[in-house]
Amino acid sequence: MSALAVKEALRELLDLYAECIDTERYDDWLALFTEDAVYQVIPRENLDQGLPAALIYCSSKNVLRDRITSLLNANEYNPHYDRHLISGVRITGGQDGAWELSANYAVFQTNLEGQSRLFSVGRYADKVVKQDGKLLFREKRVVVDTYSVPSMLATPL
Amino acid sequence: MSALAVKEALRELLDLYAECIDTERYDDWLALFTEDAVYQVIPRENLDQGLPAALIYCSSKNVLRDRITSLLNANEYNPHYDRHLISGVRITGGQDGAWELSANYAVFQTNLEGQSRLFSVGRYADKVVKQDGKLLFREKRVVVDTYSVPSMLATPL
Amino acid sequence: MSALAVKEALRELLDLYAECIDTERYDDWLALFTEDAVYQVIPRENLDQGLPAALIYCSSKNVLRDRITSLLNANEYNPHYDRHLISGVRITGGQDGAWELSANYAVFQTNLEGQSRLFSVGRYADKVVKQDGKLLFREKRVVVDTYSVPSMLATPL
Repeated sequence: MSALAVKEALRELLDLYAECIDTERYDDWLALFTEDAVYQVIPRENLDQGLPAALIYCSSKNVLRDRITSLLNANEYNPHYDRHLISGVRITGGQDGAWELSANYAVFQTNLEGQSRLFSVGRYADKVVKQDGKLLFREKRVVVDTYSVPSMLATPL
Repeated sequence: MSALAVKEALRELLDLYAECIDTERYDDWLALFTEDAVYQVIPRENLDQGLPAALIYCSSKNVLRDRITSLLNANEYNPHYDRHLISGVRITGGQDGAWELSANYAVFQTNLEGQSRLFSVGRYADKVVKQDGKLLFREKRVVVDTYSVPSMLATPL
Repeated sequence: MSALAVKEALRELLDLYAECIDTERYDDWLALFTEDAVYQVIPRENLDQGLPAALIYCSSKNVLRDRITSLLNANEYNPHYDRHLISGVRITGGQDGAWELSANYAVFQTNLEGQSRLFSVGRYADKVVKQDGKLLFREKRVVVDTYSVPSMLATPL
């Protein structure tokens, strides 16, 4: 693939990731990860200070599946719509077949009264691999600027 | 056109659409629709439940032109600036010369005191056709997550 | 370069610009400007009315460097994280080797308590040139919709 095509394919993977969450298609969302994928949500402050403590840490797709099930249970008590905006997709490392990428995100949540608010902003720092012709996340790291509402985290970021 | 060029051309159409609204060039905005274009704003909740009720429904470009004129009149009582952010442009169907696309948007409004706020988030679900070498909206469907402020809708989304 | 490659290269310049601010790498940020670069922040209202008054006006890279130093000093009294979202990158003029571009932005700020808020929305209207194979800003014009918080401007937009 050309450099332009790779960039666009990675952008599409991120956009599909967001769409799956926003439309609550969590099985499709899980299908975007490799079996050995690591998913974590980590406060930016911790990352800057070299502290490893993550708000959420899932060491494999199976662990992530369990976590999603429990998040969706919590979601019954915090019903809302998510809406992602993503920009600034950049390839930061890697080689053909395995890429590191970075992107900024904002997530807005809307409650049952139709009121929307800014929920979280931050950055994705991911590793993507190609398996059987498909791009998949081997590592998804959500570095959150906003960490004051972890108890509200009822859907993945 | 290559797949990459089509994707970029659709993204540019959406970006131009947003720019026309944000700069209040509504004639240029109208020029982005086919004569038989359908424009509607529909709450996401209604769409999810199969309810057809739209907040705004315009069955042709002429109807849309009338609607815009009346919106701009309302706008005199709610003067503000709009600012669109769009991401996640995805081609969801169609074929060469007629495409279905989806994208996420956030609209921010700024009042005369220079204060900005989140006004609306949601999704575009559009049909675009090529006429005389130009890409035009045949169907523009704005699926709003935020529906608590319809009375404030003084400019198109 | 193909038209698609030029567009993507300009988008990457904007994304890198944002990343440098968001990660507080201001030397890298300065390196994105030509020596004779003009940087200004101007309220949209002034621009619409033909008033030249800018909130910030730097007539060269040296002036901009001084300004950044003083902004960073102010930043000690307003510690926060920035997060940019950029969309709608459009080439609005120019020719091969010197381009005019436009893009929408939203900047979110997060304080030390981990609370995020919308800080500023507006538009970039820039001139970019190619020097020694690198794309650089010769003119960076930040047209702010939001101008009610200039006293809080502790980092560049």
